Amino acid sequence: MPKKRTINLALLGIGTIGGGVARALQSKKKTLARQAGSSLAIKAVVEKDVSRHGSQGLDKSIFTVDYEKAVYNPDIDIVIELIGGEYPAYYYIKEALTNGKHVVTANKELMAKHGAELLSIAHKHHAGLRFEASVGGGIPLISPFQRDLVANDIQAIYAIVNGTTNYILTRMAHDGLDFNVALKQAQKLGYAEANPDNDIGGLDAAYKLAILTSLGFDMDVNFDEVYYEGISKLRSRDFRYASELGYAIKLLAIAKRSGNRVEARVHPVFIPAESLLAKVDGVYNAIYVSGDLVGNVLFYGQGAGPSATSSAVIADVINIAQNINTRRDNAPRFIPEKTSGILPMTAIETRYYFRMIVLDQPGVLARIAAAMGDHKISISSVIQKESDPSNRTAEIVIMTHPATEKAVQEAIKIINRLKVVKEISNFIRVEAI
Amino acid sequence: MPKKRTINLALLGIGTIGGGVARALQSKKKTLARQAGSSLAIKAVVEKDVSRHGSQGLDKSIFTVDYEKAVYNPDIDIVIELIGGEYPAYYYIKEALTNGKHVVTANKELMAKHGAELLSIAHKHHAGLRFEASVGGGIPLISPFQRDLVANDIQAIYAIVNGTTNYILTRMAHDGLDFNVALKQAQKLGYAEANPDNDIGGLDAAYKLAILTSLGFDMDVNFDEVYYEGISKLRSRDFRYASELGYAIKLLAIAKRSGNRVEARVHPVFIPAESLLAKVDGVYNAIYVSGDLVGNVLFYGQGAGPSATSSAVIADVINIAQNINTRRDNAPRFIPEKTSGILPMTAIETRYYFRMIVLDQPGVLARIAAAMGDHKISISSVIQKESDPSNRTAEIVIMTHPATEKAVQEAIKIINRLKVVKEISNFIRVEAI
Repeated sequence: MPKKRTINLALLGIGTIGGGVARALQSKKKTLARQAGSSLAIKAVVEKDVSRHGSQGLDKSIFTVDYEKAVYNPDIDIVIELIGGEYPAYYYIKEALTNGKHVVTANKELMAKHGAELLSIAHKHHAGLRFEASVGGGIPLISPFQRDLVANDIQAIYAIVNGTTNYILTRMAHDGLDFNVALKQAQKLGYAEANPDNDIGGLDAAYKLAILTSLGFDMDVNFDEVYYEGISKLRSRDFRYASELGYAIKLLAIAKRSGNRVEARVHPVFIPAESLLAKVDGVYNAIYVSGDLVGNVLFYGQGAGPSATSSAVIADVINIAQNINTRRDNAPRFIPEKTSGILPMTAIETRYYFRMIVLDQPGVLARIAAAMGDHKISISSVIQKESDPSNRTAEIVIMTHPATEKAVQEAIKIINRLKVVKEISNFIRVEAI
Repeated sequence: MPKKRTINLALLGIGTIGGGVARALQSKKKTLARQAGSSLAIKAVVEKDVSRHGSQGLDKSIFTVDYEKAVYNPDIDIVIELIGGEYPAYYYIKEALTNGKHVVTANKELMAKHGAELLSIAHKHHAGLRFEASVGGGIPLISPFQRDLVANDIQAIYAIVNGTTNYILTRMAHDGLDFNVALKQAQKLGYAEANPDNDIGGLDAAYKLAILTSLGFDMDVNFDEVYYEGISKLRSRDFRYASELGYAIKLLAIAKRSGNRVEARVHPVFIPAESLLAKVDGVYNAIYVSGDLVGNVLFYGQGAGPSATSSAVIADVINIAQNINTRRDNAPRFIPEKTSGILPMTAIETRYYFRMIVLDQPGVLARIAAAMGDHKISISSVIQKESDPSNRTAEIVIMTHPATEKAVQEAIKIINRLKVVKEISNFIRVEAI
């Protein structure tokens, strides 16, 4: 390939991820230039707080606090946005695209909330907008949906896309740890942030699910319609029962065709212990996709971290650079369309696991079964094991046949009112993957 | 997207895979047209023996036995080669590319042996040459290497790429079946061919490994340098010992950076039982890739079958069609270069498992250990369990520390000459994945 002019990059943000990208761009200069067809040079870094992460070996003269020096700079070809969060990233990217800059971003929140709009702005201005790093770190996921699986009608996506929670669940399952202990260990190891709410509450996974759903089902997902629920209600006894019943518990991001609508939900799930997803441990991510032609495929790898994430960010940069060099249009090929959208959570249908404390006396199960039966929920199995003679209570676990969420929520209200039921300690949805 | 003219396809071969592709192209016409940006129409089918698989609902008038009617036909945009085998596929594809046709192929043997040459012909004629279906059926593999992992220096690839052997090994491991019984069951279920030699002998996996090695290490692999060995020497007792030692046995295709050369070899391998690859059962395929940035990623799915394979074939077709419609060059971006190539098998270094029958008398182990020690092979563990009093023999299993293949082969010669050793029943390489 004949040598082309240098492709100039601007980095927005040089924190943990930005630092990783900056280091890789410098240390692998030669390899990357060969792949891109021309040198890649960082010409501007926009960062408010350089003192925090240092200059990563870059010339301090290219640092600025003024984003306009990147997005309006005629020398810049590609803007790499690694600030994260909705604002001001949204404005920066919009300005960059409108000025014909190509954009690479790892910003899941932004793509989840404004993906369709930004892609259509990019398209209008013949600019590239790539976001492979926004889901699953370095695992190829966005591009397989955009390229490799396009002949398929996607039926379902089941994804472990949050390493923090998967680490915590792994420790709870394998070492019998309580949630709080496992969380503290995750924080100690740097797998969970000081404020872990977005991870353990399921919000982070919901952003990623919105992106995957949009890609898998060619739809402009309204993020507010994505249901999410975190892992903090799980107790070590849930894991013991799961194991006894032949299941594992994972926080899954699920997108599933349901008639002419799509389910999109994040919550803890019982999945068969022998399924491959059940074996994805620690901070690893995995995405399981079911398509009408391809059958089931699974993608697995490190879902976070500066090095893995820079693999995806730089692949996007190289891809854009190759297109610049061969004069191909970098405009997004596909802008998802507004559709009838997401099935309301109440309408989903699945199996359920219940754990409850009941009075240890005859006829209790009959009453619970009747309350469930009234809502067309049929019981598939019951475990009753530990009774507490001092309180005359017992713990029972019920697995149901498929039922709608609406029926289950209504039955829960009725069951909570039964005098023989002390508490519904937990209920967890069950998926047959 | 404005509607573009129809993209015309020619199918070379309408056997099992070709039939699947033809069916999917017809039944999913609308979805595919939306993705491609224009209709995809099969305008010619070259097939010698239509009676075998039928016309798959296509108009009989487009069938021909004359390949020239496809590759020289000015109406044809994309030639889809699904005949398989080296010749005449090689000539057909060469002619098609030279005539400016784009080519999609699932032909692993051809790409393994002539990939670099055909890619460079395609490049010269600005024609596309895609081969996603040649490895791993519908699992996205070729395109992740070409696009998503380009920022990485690939360190290793460990792949289960032959479903037939993985099915047989799974039955041997889980059900204690003998090789011949497992093979017969595989044949009965259609997972193994009547003549299964290419699969069980490792040749099929070696073709795929040559392609993966070429992609992962940017090199023009000389197929003759790829080492391969099949699974027929494995006995059910090997699986019992493996399990006892904490391992599984898989037929792996391995490509690994070793100094400035690359190992490329297919053979049965002991891998840790807890590794994800060990859990890939039945006819499924999985490819584990280790890169300097991305860390470890794994791709999993159905590696064969008309439906999964057509997912990859049609994705390639759609990708070419999109480029035609947006006037992008379809020429391959990267032609692998001739390099110093593959490390000879004798130079690889790994751990080994030995199973042998020895005389049940004192001092035997000392002699074997000495023979190994003379070749700098150090023993890490020994199991001696079953002795046969009638013959005064015992079976011992030895696990070594890392040693070179050369040293091991020489030690085997010496050990075979020891009077106290009745036979070396098997030896299997061990990888710490």
